[in-house]
Amino acid sequence: MTHEPLDVLREIFKAAPFIAHLGIDLDSVSNGECATSLRLRPDHLQQNGVVHAGVIATMADHTAGGAAGSVMEKGSYPLTAEFNINLLRAASGDSLVCRARVLRAGRTLIVAESEVFAVSGGEETLCAKALVTLAVLRKDPEKRDTAKSPA
Amino acid sequence: MTHEPLDVLREIFKAAPFIAHLGIDLDSVSNGECATSLRLRPDHLQQNGVVHAGVIATMADHTAGGAAGSVMEKGSYPLTAEFNINLLRAASGDSLVCRARVLRAGRTLIVAESEVFAVSGGEETLCAKALVTLAVLRKDPEKRDTAKSPA
Amino acid sequence: MTHEPLDVLREIFKAAPFIAHLGIDLDSVSNGECATSLRLRPDHLQQNGVVHAGVIATMADHTAGGAAGSVMEKGSYPLTAEFNINLLRAASGDSLVCRARVLRAGRTLIVAESEVFAVSGGEETLCAKALVTLAVLRKDPEKRDTAKSPA
Amino acid sequence: MTHEPLDVLREIFKAAPFIAHLGIDLDSVSNGECATSLRLRPDHLQQNGVVHAGVIATMADHTAGGAAGSVMEKGSYPLTAEFNINLLRAASGDSLVCRARVLRAGRTLIVAESEVFAVSGGEETLCAKALVTLAVLRKDPEKRDTAKSPA
Repeated sequence: MTHEPLDVLREIFKAAPFIAHLGIDLDSVSNGECATSLRLRPDHLQQNGVVHAGVIATMADHTAGGAAGSVMEKGSYPLTAEFNINLLRAASGDSLVCRARVLRAGRTLIVAESEVFAVSGGEETLCAKALVTLAVLRKDPEKRDTAKSPA
Repeated sequence: MTHEPLDVLREIFKAAPFIAHLGIDLDSVSNGECATSLRLRPDHLQQNGVVHAGVIATMADHTAGGAAGSVMEKGSYPLTAEFNINLLRAASGDSLVCRARVLRAGRTLIVAESEVFAVSGGEETLCAKALVTLAVLRKDPEKRDTAKSPA
Repeated sequence: MTHEPLDVLREIFKAAPFIAHLGIDLDSVSNGECATSLRLRPDHLQQNGVVHAGVIATMADHTAGGAAGSVMEKGSYPLTAEFNINLLRAASGDSLVCRARVLRAGRTLIVAESEVFAVSGGEETLCAKALVTLAVLRKDPEKRDTAKSPA
Repeated sequence: MTHEPLDVLREIFKAAPFIAHLGIDLDSVSNGECATSLRLRPDHLQQNGVVHAGVIATMADHTAGGAAGSVMEKGSYPLTAEFNINLLRAASGDSLVCRARVLRAGRTLIVAESEVFAVSGGEETLCAKALVTLAVLRKDPEKRDTAKSPA
C-alpha cells in the first residue's frame, strides 16, 4: 500500500523519463485507483492533428501501473505484461485525463482497466478503454534495481 | 498500393509529429510489410532503465499502420481501431527494430501483427508482439483531412 | 434498434446453434445493454472442475453481440472482429451471468465491454472482463444471409 | 517438459470435459508447439452457418495451453490469464486445425500465439490469430487439485 504523500508519489511517477518527457502528471492515487492528466502539445499528435494512439496507450498503461502500485506491498512494483486498448474516438482538445482502477489484485498478477478522456472546453469525452495485465515484481534488497522481464 | 519512392514514404511516415519526436525511422515498406527502427535515448526509458512499454507500443502500432497503408488503395488511409501487445522481455540496448505484416486486408478492416526486437551488439531479441486492427478510412477529396474516429 | 418483444429476441439469440447447445439464455436487451445467464453443467468445465475459459469467452462475446445488435438499424447485424478477455478469477458455482454494454457505436464498428460473474448461493463474483470489437454488417435483401468475414 | 507418449497426452488433453464435448483432438505436442483439430458439427455454428467465435477462441486458448504445458516442469500446469483473438475470416468447411507455439516461457508467465485454420477440401485458410498469456501454477502435492485463480 502507498502511504507516501501525494507530492512524493508525483515525483516517483515522473521518475520514468518517458513519462516526464511526455508530460503526464499524477493527479491522485490510492486504494487501487489512479488519475493522471496530460496537457496536449503539438508533438503528441498524428499527421491529421489528433492525438497519436501511442500517447493514449502510454497514458492508459502507466496510469494502470499507478493503480496497481497502490495495492502492492512495500518492496514490490508493477511491470506491464500485456495490454489491450480500444481507440473509441479520435482525441483532440486541450488535455487528456486518464482514470484507472484495479479489477483484480492477485499475488503475482494484477489486472486494471483504464479509461482515457479528451477534455475540451471543460467537457470530457471517452476516447479509449484499456485492459492491462501487470506482473508483481519484488525489489531485490541486495542488488540494484535491474531490468527484469515480466516473467 | 504504395508506389512512391522510399524517401518520399519516409517523409510521410515522419509527418506524424509524435513519431518524428520519438525518432522512429521507416526502413522499408511494401506489399503488406513494414520495418522501422529507433535509436534508443534516455527519454525512451522507464525509471528502471528499460524501454517504456509506451514506446514499444507506439512503434508496434505505427509500423502496423505502415504495413496496412501499403496494401490500401490511393485515397485511403489506416486508423488504429484497437491493438493488443504482449511485452515478452524487458527491452534495452542500442536500438529497437519493428517488423509488421498484414494478416488480413478487408474492405473496411485490416489486421496486422508487429514484432519488436531489442538490438544490442548487433543481436536481435524479440521483446514484444502485437495484434493490431486498423480501420480503412477514405480521404474526403472535397475537404481537408479532418480528425475522424475509427468508426 | 430492437423493437421486438423479449420472447422473440430470446429465440433469435438462441438461433445460434452453439449458444443453444451451451445453454446460454438471454435475460434482457435494450439500448446498448444486454444480460445473459448460463446454468452450469459438467460439460462446461476444465479438468480441475472450474468453468473452461472458452465457455466464459463465448458468453462475453455473444452477449456483447446482443448489446451491439440493440443499437443497430434494422437490416444490420454484428459480427465479432476481435476480442480481448481477462480471466480474473476461477469460475465455479451454480451459474454464470454476463452483462455487456456498448462503449461506442460507430457506423462500421461497435465496441462493447462484457463482465462475466460466477453466481454461487445467490452471490455474484466478477470472474472475467472483455473488450469486444464488432463489425456492422448489412443484410443483403436480395440474397440469402451468407457467411461473411468481418471485413 | 512432457515425456509421456502421445496417446497418454491425448487423454490428458481431453480430460477437460468442455474440450471432449466440443470434440477437439490433440494431434501433436512437443517443445513449445501444439497442434489440434476439430471436425465441424452443426452445433459449432452461428445462426448464419459459420463457426461461432466461441468455438474458435476455445480452440486457440486450449491449444496455447497445450504448447505452454509442453515447456513446463513436471508438477506445474498452465492457466489462461487472458487472451486476445482476431477473427480474420468467417470459418466454415469440414474441420478446423489450430497450431500454437510458445513465444516466451518465463518462470511465472508463458506467452503463446495460436493460429486457427479452416480446412475445406484439404485446403487450409487462416481464420483467426490469438495471443495468449498463461500463468504457471504449481500442483499442490498434499492437496487435491483445486480450483485456482490465475493470480
